[in-house]
Amino acid sequence: VNVVQAALDGDRRALARLLSWAEDGSDAGREALATLFPRSGQAHIVGITGSTGAGKSTLVNRLAAEFRQRDQTLAVVAVDPTSPYSGGALLGDRLRMRNLVTDEGVFIRSMASRGHPGGIAHATRDVVTILDAVGFPLILVETVGAGQAQVEVARVAHTVVLVEAPGMGDDIQALKAGLMEIADIIVVNKADRPEARQTVRALQSVRRSTQPAGHHGAQATASTAPTTDWEVPILQTAALDNQGVPELADTIVAHRRYLEESHRWEALHREHARAEIENWLQRHLLTRLETHIGEDRIQAWVDTVQRRECDPASAAEILLQEMLNTQQRNG
Amino acid sequence: VNVVQAALDGDRRALARLLSWAEDGSDAGREALATLFPRSGQAHIVGITGSTGAGKSTLVNRLAAEFRQRDQTLAVVAVDPTSPYSGGALLGDRLRMRNLVTDEGVFIRSMASRGHPGGIAHATRDVVTILDAVGFPLILVETVGAGQAQVEVARVAHTVVLVEAPGMGDDIQALKAGLMEIADIIVVNKADRPEARQTVRALQSVRRSTQPAGHHGAQATASTAPTTDWEVPILQTAALDNQGVPELADTIVAHRRYLEESHRWEALHREHARAEIENWLQRHLLTRLETHIGEDRIQAWVDTVQRRECDPASAAEILLQEMLNTQQRNG
Repeated sequence: VNVVQAALDGDRRALARLLSWAEDGSDAGREALATLFPRSGQAHIVGITGSTGAGKSTLVNRLAAEFRQRDQTLAVVAVDPTSPYSGGALLGDRLRMRNLVTDEGVFIRSMASRGHPGGIAHATRDVVTILDAVGFPLILVETVGAGQAQVEVARVAHTVVLVEAPGMGDDIQALKAGLMEIADIIVVNKADRPEARQTVRALQSVRRSTQPAGHHGAQATASTAPTTDWEVPILQTAALDNQGVPELADTIVAHRRYLEESHRWEALHREHARAEIENWLQRHLLTRLETHIGEDRIQAWVDTVQRRECDPASAAEILLQEMLNTQQRNG
Repeated sequence: VNVVQAALDGDRRALARLLSWAEDGSDAGREALATLFPRSGQAHIVGITGSTGAGKSTLVNRLAAEFRQRDQTLAVVAVDPTSPYSGGALLGDRLRMRNLVTDEGVFIRSMASRGHPGGIAHATRDVVTILDAVGFPLILVETVGAGQAQVEVARVAHTVVLVEAPGMGDDIQALKAGLMEIADIIVVNKADRPEARQTVRALQSVRRSTQPAGHHGAQATASTAPTTDWEVPILQTAALDNQGVPELADTIVAHRRYLEESHRWEALHREHARAEIENWLQRHLLTRLETHIGEDRIQAWVDTVQRRECDPASAAEILLQEMLNTQQRNG
């Protein structure tokens, strides 16, 4: 595969093409992914999520610049639900990262949250796998806006950075526990604001009350307990003034070290592998249903359920059995 | 099924038991759902979502009281990621809705966001189906906190109410488009605050720029275009002072009327039916894999993928084919 080799050789336009294929869920994308997958698994994938209005974009920008000063090559993926562009919102990328765009050591990619056949989480994972495989040792995945993407970044990342702004007030307890569960590092950005200290204190009390340290959110369930503990740090940054950014970079590096020493690194890869297999199982199944049963027959069952003549669990059971029977006859 | 009949006869403890079964994904729950499903499809399901700190809980409380004053029987489901309880956080319910808890015309149910085998969205749908089937004509589904549940409520609801607080400032454009897409009604709560007018103006400009009116978010794709248009209204409430709440109740009732007149009601039911069938297909498939292939063999493939010896899409393909072959031999 020509384009794959070009991307491996450092051709950025070839890389961009591969990423578009992967985002579109095309056959070419599937093929490229299968070819590249064995080379992946080296990169440190850092998810950056959190409240809207917390200044995430600026922080990611400064963080990328900080890593560049350390001669670290990296890729930045911005999952942006407001972007109408699928396959790389070039203008947006340039506006966001004016200072970095001429730097060969950074590759920036924006993804729209719509237009991905297998869902945004799946597309993000595929994009990250490709960037990992072509050799970026560090990948920052920023989720813009609220919603699903915010939680799902944890299913791709090794390290989840939760960014907050000061002044969330007394609602913080109810509000943050859902996201704090998946955080490995908490950042209070805009820390030059007077309310920052109160926010830090509120976050500290939520951290204490929700979760033992050393976890990695919902994924850590049962499968692995860390051998050493990671106390989720609460850092303060003022990204616009570049304050606290080097400390954040240090903490991200420290978290990778912790993951490796505690063998959480392999455990996370196993969890991610399982999630990906299960996701692909569903996609394959739906494709086979379309092929062997046909859209008309599926739609007929949807109508039956809509008329409440059959419950959805039973309809699904029947469809699955029909498909198995068809395959038996044909196989 | 005894408990099902008792729940249908109005026994609240039997109903609570059914809901717990459904939440746990137990066989008893599946059976109850299959029995009750034909009776569902009548209720108006209203999702209430939006920013944390916007005062959603208070607003839902007042809205429920408003509907009670109109002699409307209703159920309230609070999807609460902060709650460690699965199967009805009783204390929390009572604290949240002190004024309503002795009222026989309201049924209140809290759901933790964890501990549901098929995911929170699936559990929410099952709980709503049961409440619908036993005869609640109006069901308010409130999502607490950020993340996935917020977006997924749109896959259960007929009407999505997005609640905001004033003072989100200039970040509102970037931040809200993701959620505004799924909103049928936008509410600026705490409208007594001085920043309220600015927030309303900001929301108006985002509404204009993102989406034509008359949609229902991501679900509306292709399948149906409404015959009449629904201009997403932006209401102002001050739930603590009970201001604007009757108008919100009126607008919710008007949206149901719009859905029925535009035939969006049936279209939504068809979309929900399809989503439920696809979700159950995956659950059945995973169950069959466990049964016919076995956890050991699945785990072996997870390990193979983790060692990067096979990509996840191919591993899933092989597992699926193995399962089909096994069924062929056994069938």
